[in-house]
Amino acid sequence: MYTSAKGGIVLKYILSKRSFRSIYHEKVQQLAPDYQLVSINELPDSFRWEQVVITIGWDKKWADKLLHSATNLKWVQSISAGVDYLPLESFAKYGILLSNGSGIHAQSISDHLLGLLLMKTRGLFPAMQQQMTHTWESETLPYDNLSEQVITIVGTGQIGQELARKLSLLGCSVQGINTTGRKTPYFSQTYPLTNLHACAQESDIVINILPLTEDTRHLYDQTFFQAMKKTGSFMNVGRGPSVDSHALLAALQANELAFASIDVTDPEPLPKDDPLWDAPNLLITPHISGQTAHFQSLFMEIFLKNFSSFIQNHSLTKNEVSLENGY
Amino acid sequence: MYTSAKGGIVLKYILSKRSFRSIYHEKVQQLAPDYQLVSINELPDSFRWEQVVITIGWDKKWADKLLHSATNLKWVQSISAGVDYLPLESFAKYGILLSNGSGIHAQSISDHLLGLLLMKTRGLFPAMQQQMTHTWESETLPYDNLSEQVITIVGTGQIGQELARKLSLLGCSVQGINTTGRKTPYFSQTYPLTNLHACAQESDIVINILPLTEDTRHLYDQTFFQAMKKTGSFMNVGRGPSVDSHALLAALQANELAFASIDVTDPEPLPKDDPLWDAPNLLITPHISGQTAHFQSLFMEIFLKNFSSFIQNHSLTKNEVSLENGY
Repeated sequence: MYTSAKGGIVLKYILSKRSFRSIYHEKVQQLAPDYQLVSINELPDSFRWEQVVITIGWDKKWADKLLHSATNLKWVQSISAGVDYLPLESFAKYGILLSNGSGIHAQSISDHLLGLLLMKTRGLFPAMQQQMTHTWESETLPYDNLSEQVITIVGTGQIGQELARKLSLLGCSVQGINTTGRKTPYFSQTYPLTNLHACAQESDIVINILPLTEDTRHLYDQTFFQAMKKTGSFMNVGRGPSVDSHALLAALQANELAFASIDVTDPEPLPKDDPLWDAPNLLITPHISGQTAHFQSLFMEIFLKNFSSFIQNHSLTKNEVSLENGY
Repeated sequence: MYTSAKGGIVLKYILSKRSFRSIYHEKVQQLAPDYQLVSINELPDSFRWEQVVITIGWDKKWADKLLHSATNLKWVQSISAGVDYLPLESFAKYGILLSNGSGIHAQSISDHLLGLLLMKTRGLFPAMQQQMTHTWESETLPYDNLSEQVITIVGTGQIGQELARKLSLLGCSVQGINTTGRKTPYFSQTYPLTNLHACAQESDIVINILPLTEDTRHLYDQTFFQAMKKTGSFMNVGRGPSVDSHALLAALQANELAFASIDVTDPEPLPKDDPLWDAPNLLITPHISGQTAHFQSLFMEIFLKNFSSFIQNHSLTKNEVSLENGY
């Protein structure tokens, strides 16, 4: 495809934001000897940006080289499920395929959320705050049966389904919200996104797992938090900008919400002086819910399937993303 | 049974440490019109200690009146599963029956422990500590798959079985330890207590749910903590004195244990100046794991079954405790 100044065959590069074990470099070469997997941190001297045909992950700094200059980029395999941070319009303009990492993080994010749900129903968060002041006081700590909570999961993709599956095994009945209200496995009921506030009114816990799109930016605003019960909890493992941070802070400070936990913020990292850090009844985790043991093998299962079909007929078989919808 | 000075029938009392809703007072009277359920906080003027035939729960202050004076006490229904705080020898001496509340707290304590397990594997405890200093740092937070943890539950009674059941639904394989090593539902393997240190060596997480007896006092001592992996975690929802607090503190301070969580301490409440409060990687909760929604109906299901057989033939059908073994 490319020839060097001297006419020799030049490799096509798969440029990756993360490093992978050598076994995966070998698998790529076995499937297509003219391709080479390289990490951005270990670029060979002979590397040239025009040789990049595929990227694994994305970095804003790459845009100049891979989009605005003459480019041979044909496919971006995102590591995350959400692709809101990517220049989707440019990808559409240049005919660049996009696939995401949906499914890789279902296990870890659902466990993260199940942990939060149990922390809430068993009073573990306020207990830990009491410990800071050496306070032994059980009477004021709240407790509930997990199985009696009305739980609404907003976003019924692989993560939402895995959480609903686990919760149903533990005796919980879970309702889901997705764009159209289509039926989804493991959810006892599903509603369209237009029902969000109605669901919030009757829920003990609302969990956001939606991707960020123009439709979901500031979806959780003052009106939403006012719709929720005062005893309700809100959790966000989707994207920070889906929440109006000022509205969340105000709801917590006014005790209009009993508990919240956010794994994503706007912006990230959350600035040192952001008032959310000290908001009452708020647990902030630094975008860790998707941290996944065995990430490499789970990710490569998706990537190598796509790579096989890509080199055969320029198509993707797993997790292709609509550049128009953004998911 | 008792007659007043004027010869009228005198009620027999069921003296309770906790208050119960009126429906349960009525049920007692329906089963046996000569019995009345009274709470220690609402004793009728005519109450006399010699009228107490049954107690629900126990208070050290009652011993003088109900054991050392002339007593008609015949049965103590403990609220908790553990009965170590009761004067078992006096009960044996006076022929007082004892039953416990085993089973009532299985749901809540197993949820408490599942929450702790997920807090551990998802890095939620150190994330919360980072929040205190407004630190957004994901790289240093640990994460593991819950289903890959080697979990040993010491105590395979109703609480242990309920936890093992939930964990097995979530894809975990759990080993158990009990006195003799007898097979128990939901455990993939069971070992006798003599294998504790051998199990500790290969476990990622050891959970104590044993009652306190002379055999379990300081069961978790320096030798035990030395046997555990440095990456291991220890959780105690049994009784505080089963743990040698000094040994636990030393193990945590020396980083010989990655995480511990104790819901019971020695003594309780834990004194304000106890160094455990500030021990690294230790979560202390103030004996809340057994706090149970719908406690009254769950407890009364046991009590009323026993009460029926007690008034018929002076026997107990649910949860009778061996005064010799202490469980």
